[in-house]
Amino acid sequence: MSVVYDIEIPADVPESMKALYARNYHMITHESGRLMLFAGDQKIEHLNDDFYGEGIHEDDSDPEHLFRIAKEGRIGVFASQLGLIAKYGRDYSDIPYLVKLNSKTNLVKTDQKDPLSVQLWSVEQVAKFRDVSGLKIAGVGYTIYLGSEYEDVMLSEAAKVIWDAHQNGFIVVLWIYPRGKAVKNEKDPHLIAGAAGTAATLGSDFVKVNAPKKEGFDPAELLKEVSLAAGRTRLVCAGGSSTSAEKFLSQLYDQIHTGGASGNATGRNIHQKSLSEAVRMCNAISAITIDNADVKTALKIYNEE
Amino acid sequence: MSVVYDIEIPADVPESMKALYARNYHMITHESGRLMLFAGDQKIEHLNDDFYGEGIHEDDSDPEHLFRIAKEGRIGVFASQLGLIAKYGRDYSDIPYLVKLNSKTNLVKTDQKDPLSVQLWSVEQVAKFRDVSGLKIAGVGYTIYLGSEYEDVMLSEAAKVIWDAHQNGFIVVLWIYPRGKAVKNEKDPHLIAGAAGTAATLGSDFVKVNAPKKEGFDPAELLKEVSLAAGRTRLVCAGGSSTSAEKFLSQLYDQIHTGGASGNATGRNIHQKSLSEAVRMCNAISAITIDNADVKTALKIYNEE
Amino acid sequence: MSVVYDIEIPADVPESMKALYARNYHMITHESGRLMLFAGDQKIEHLNDDFYGEGIHEDDSDPEHLFRIAKEGRIGVFASQLGLIAKYGRDYSDIPYLVKLNSKTNLVKTDQKDPLSVQLWSVEQVAKFRDVSGLKIAGVGYTIYLGSEYEDVMLSEAAKVIWDAHQNGFIVVLWIYPRGKAVKNEKDPHLIAGAAGTAATLGSDFVKVNAPKKEGFDPAELLKEVSLAAGRTRLVCAGGSSTSAEKFLSQLYDQIHTGGASGNATGRNIHQKSLSEAVRMCNAISAITIDNADVKTALKIYNEE
Amino acid sequence: MSVVYDIEIPADVPESMKALYARNYHMITHESGRLMLFAGDQKIEHLNDDFYGEGIHEDDSDPEHLFRIAKEGRIGVFASQLGLIAKYGRDYSDIPYLVKLNSKTNLVKTDQKDPLSVQLWSVEQVAKFRDVSGLKIAGVGYTIYLGSEYEDVMLSEAAKVIWDAHQNGFIVVLWIYPRGKAVKNEKDPHLIAGAAGTAATLGSDFVKVNAPKKEGFDPAELLKEVSLAAGRTRLVCAGGSSTSAEKFLSQLYDQIHTGGASGNATGRNIHQKSLSEAVRMCNAISAITIDNADVKTALKIYNEE
Amino acid sequence: MSVVYDIEIPADVPESMKALYARNYHMITHESGRLMLFAGDQKIEHLNDDFYGEGIHEDDSDPEHLFRIAKEGRIGVFASQLGLIAKYGRDYSDIPYLVKLNSKTNLVKTDQKDPLSVQLWSVEQVAKFRDVSGLKIAGVGYTIYLGSEYEDVMLSEAAKVIWDAHQNGFIVVLWIYPRGKAVKNEKDPHLIAGAAGTAATLGSDFVKVNAPKKEGFDPAELLKEVSLAAGRTRLVCAGGSSTSAEKFLSQLYDQIHTGGASGNATGRNIHQKSLSEAVRMCNAISAITIDNADVKTALKIYNEE
Repeated sequence: MSVVYDIEIPADVPESMKALYARNYHMITHESGRLMLFAGDQKIEHLNDDFYGEGIHEDDSDPEHLFRIAKEGRIGVFASQLGLIAKYGRDYSDIPYLVKLNSKTNLVKTDQKDPLSVQLWSVEQVAKFRDVSGLKIAGVGYTIYLGSEYEDVMLSEAAKVIWDAHQNGFIVVLWIYPRGKAVKNEKDPHLIAGAAGTAATLGSDFVKVNAPKKEGFDPAELLKEVSLAAGRTRLVCAGGSSTSAEKFLSQLYDQIHTGGASGNATGRNIHQKSLSEAVRMCNAISAITIDNADVKTALKIYNEE
Repeated sequence: MSVVYDIEIPADVPESMKALYARNYHMITHESGRLMLFAGDQKIEHLNDDFYGEGIHEDDSDPEHLFRIAKEGRIGVFASQLGLIAKYGRDYSDIPYLVKLNSKTNLVKTDQKDPLSVQLWSVEQVAKFRDVSGLKIAGVGYTIYLGSEYEDVMLSEAAKVIWDAHQNGFIVVLWIYPRGKAVKNEKDPHLIAGAAGTAATLGSDFVKVNAPKKEGFDPAELLKEVSLAAGRTRLVCAGGSSTSAEKFLSQLYDQIHTGGASGNATGRNIHQKSLSEAVRMCNAISAITIDNADVKTALKIYNEE
Repeated sequence: MSVVYDIEIPADVPESMKALYARNYHMITHESGRLMLFAGDQKIEHLNDDFYGEGIHEDDSDPEHLFRIAKEGRIGVFASQLGLIAKYGRDYSDIPYLVKLNSKTNLVKTDQKDPLSVQLWSVEQVAKFRDVSGLKIAGVGYTIYLGSEYEDVMLSEAAKVIWDAHQNGFIVVLWIYPRGKAVKNEKDPHLIAGAAGTAATLGSDFVKVNAPKKEGFDPAELLKEVSLAAGRTRLVCAGGSSTSAEKFLSQLYDQIHTGGASGNATGRNIHQKSLSEAVRMCNAISAITIDNADVKTALKIYNEE
Repeated sequence: MSVVYDIEIPADVPESMKALYARNYHMITHESGRLMLFAGDQKIEHLNDDFYGEGIHEDDSDPEHLFRIAKEGRIGVFASQLGLIAKYGRDYSDIPYLVKLNSKTNLVKTDQKDPLSVQLWSVEQVAKFRDVSGLKIAGVGYTIYLGSEYEDVMLSEAAKVIWDAHQNGFIVVLWIYPRGKAVKNEKDPHLIAGAAGTAATLGSDFVKVNAPKKEGFDPAELLKEVSLAAGRTRLVCAGGSSTSAEKFLSQLYDQIHTGGASGNATGRNIHQKSLSEAVRMCNAISAITIDNADVKTALKIYNEE
Repeated sequence: MSVVYDIEIPADVPESMKALYARNYHMITHESGRLMLFAGDQKIEHLNDDFYGEGIHEDDSDPEHLFRIAKEGRIGVFASQLGLIAKYGRDYSDIPYLVKLNSKTNLVKTDQKDPLSVQLWSVEQVAKFRDVSGLKIAGVGYTIYLGSEYEDVMLSEAAKVIWDAHQNGFIVVLWIYPRGKAVKNEKDPHLIAGAAGTAATLGSDFVKVNAPKKEGFDPAELLKEVSLAAGRTRLVCAGGSSTSAEKFLSQLYDQIHTGGASGNATGRNIHQKSLSEAVRMCNAISAITIDNADVKTALKIYNEE
């Protein structure tokens, strides 16, 4: 059951770009107001750790696996870096893409240096790439490490990204993670609510956060403060490390129906599976996110080979 | 009782922008020469601390609360970031806005790294936003942490902001707080006078400072050195953390009538209340600031439901 | 007795700007080749320390005091920041101005971080300001802290300032002070001669230095090495902290007639006095600097109420 | 035996540049899809260590040696810096060139400061140089030290280099070496696979890595994870320090036929020999890389004087 | 006896600038292919140390001394900063000039902070200065401290300087000195050869290095590795601190005839003398460098008053 969502176009989108903005918004949300984001941007962030090794299907060792999943599975949008999309895009031109603009590796740890992820491509380049390639590029993404000694760099790049994106009719997803020597508890609900409020203040369309945790509290209940703080910026939760499909889908259902989330951003829980299983996982997630299905229905989709 | 204030247009405002500058000045001061600034820019500065928790009304957990207050209450100008204004502006198009241009979170403390708040939006973007959105954007704001090891970044950004703002007919409010490892006493009157003088030197139209404090001295008396040092730059005091309405309004009256202040910049003392109470608080503050009312009259406005 | 000084126009002044350059040079030197610079740029540098407190006349607590002195007294040029000039300039349009382009506060001390004063306004902005305001802006100023770990920033900004100034017909005054953890003795004559030589190398029109000191030596004699090193860049000495008028005027006379200086740059010794006394002090200084008067004549001017 | 390789043109190459991109790709791979890169960019990286001293032929002390080899030997492309190519290019106009864009010396060690190699020439300059000089400049190269505290600088420069290169029809080779205080084992296969995946993510055409090593494992087998992770970005291994021709050629054969490499990037193993021997070494390497020859055939070429 | 040297014009000089490049090259080498560079750029580098004090002729205390020498003596080119040339150039319009683009003082020592000398003028400014002033500006110079923690800044500025210079028909001289905490022996021949190779790689026309030293070796013999490494970039040695004329001239002769140098860059050994002696020293040096004279002939020139 899909709900057509009447979107509010932000006031910084110029008249000439409103139709394109709405089209992109509807495309990646399937007109549901909810976002199923397939995250395929970790090849720099986590190097080869997420793609090769114990418990990871061998299909995942080839970057093309991500594109095969995004093509065959039901997703809202596939997030990856411009360079990788340029390499495979011509053969996967039906996928809706979101270009992740900044990245860093996981080699330098926080106790050596606070996290800094800088912009690798400008929104102008993405817009030109959209035109040159003819690909369905609907939006851009950017990660902020809030509480890092370098948060100023990322806050200012993010603000400019959002502005430039809206000038070009793109939808923006911010990834915001509190991280750095000053951050004692990255999963603190109040802190994550602050991250969501920061996204709202910057004017992002969506914000991806890690689900909050607090000993003795229901995580979905904790999410309420967060989704309230996000205001009109819609909240999606990160999928996190691999877990069982049932647990994952239940969690997602609760995040949406109890916590006020508007979707999910899932990577490892999809691409570390074989192509066939990954596609079914996408479809199950989309059933909950886009079609408002319950967990039982979604699990059935996942288990039907 | 409102006083029509004959404004001095600074010499860096070009001929073609003088009328717009004067119009903006009169709009946000209600032609009184005094400014009642409603501060709604803390969602990055203080994350969710000011908006959710004990002693804070639940209305405040949703960012739209700020816009509801600004619409229904009597204010001079509502200060917030461009992104948040872009999200709600179309539904709140009657509010006079001031775009706060820089922000940082409170996660990294001064003993780890001196404060640095960098510009997130250029004045040119704000001018374009004004044109694209049709919103009543009257001015811009910028915070300087004087005495920080990074004061050079903020001084130079602020100087350019003021120049660019005046080229575009905008009014400028500087927030100046002495802060950093070199600053022993942030409330020292002589130091705050220096901050006010810095604002004058940079050519700001208004400067927002914290009210000075000194053991055994009347705060309003201490403010005299500050307002003198500000010269033609008009001084407004920060509202600070929540306090009783009576104490707050008395303080404000003294800041204006004894200390030489030209208004106030208040956030938490307004938005942490329910919508109805917040609106009455706005009206009470405006009575003192704009209408030259006494404390008793203002309190009556605050208490009338 | 005034001496008409035949100026050498530097080779980087374009043909179209030579007349304006010469006019500005003659205006601020009263065609004497000597400069009486009234320094009113310390409201950032020294915050409110120079303007309020024991031993400082209460007239000095209001920034407008500086403009009143510059208008009523006889000076060569009044140096202050663009923002302050923009605030008062329309009411003081007869004053010849020099825009000081960079500034820092005195809060962060050298043992915490070496001094860095960055440019707040570009020469292009000053040129536009001159056109927009119609004010008599004759030149620009810039401070270099030689020996600071950040001297590279200031040397490169200064070189560009001089180039841009000459392209726009402006006269340039460099303030050069050796300062930083590497500088053991800021008043060492040989070091100050190096500062003067640096100004010559950068092509400045004037250089302001602190008068050198060396136990057992006549300060005016010590100045000879400095004025020689400055070459065609003309040397002016900083007035320093407040002292008696007689001592001040004698010192100035010796700096010019023994040390080879071409004038002075005086702030506190003027503006910390009442308006009337400050004006007489200006006139006394100008008598020595511009009219080649002796100390006795100058003192008489100072003492005549 | 040469294999014509049907290249995939990345989606960021504009229509007007596709033919040139394909021409360059075919030229430097001899239409084999494999790259024999002759590396002559170490005169900054290693200063004179690789060119003068024990075990190095005296021919190598003159920079022209590199050009003589590249002219007389069979190579895919000769990689060197713009400045050196500008000095000798007119006399060696038949060589296909790849301009290495960044460089650092080996003087500052990692325990003093993490490695940072910044861009010395823009792609626009290279394109203009191609036009001005008429030289056969087919591509550009850039080195990233992954895991350095400065990886952000290099990742962002590299992303822009690739974008700009493709806009100009150039082929890109990234050199990626994990290096810095955070990197414990630079030859770790999983880490090098991460480097290859980073190159894929950035959209590079080729990536040069050091061959992985792990006690008790066949290096060519270890390379499989790496070449898989590289996806459509083709992998070439660095030649490393001088070794025997037989060992070198066997290793190369295995890297290609077992490890999935698409060529090699060799410097010292070529240019530290006399001109005649260096030329034969080039030809032997090209036989394996381009012509699919076996080691025996290649060794015969090397030994035939 | 002068040798006409057939110059190789680098491939990055555009067609339209080749004639000017050749004219400049011939002018400063007197068509000998050898360069006699009179270094007058130390007023920032060494402050007043080289110009005033024991053992220094009093003529040297006035910057004009440098111009008098350059006018009356026989030199190849006079190197100084743009600002100083602008001050004196109109009166010394026959001197061939080379504008030194970067400078730092000697106040901050290497154990406090590694050396960083940043660019003060762009090549575009120099080109405009040439046009505006009509002066004979033939080239530009830039210093790199190789092995400094900031070598990246200087390498990238130098590469751009060379590119821009060649686009404007200027000749480039790089000063390269290994210096910084990582450099144990600044005079190590192998290291200096690396510096020369770096200059070649950057495409400089000339490189100025300090003469190498090694206990028990003939300095001129040590220079051979260096001049070989420089390739087509021509090598000139720094004159160093003041020494006897005979020793100086013998050394120079050996550097050229044994070591493969193409000239010299001399400052203190010239300008610390009286005008008359300095002029004779210039002429003696030029005899060896340009006219291929022997030491005896040169000494005769020096001694003839």
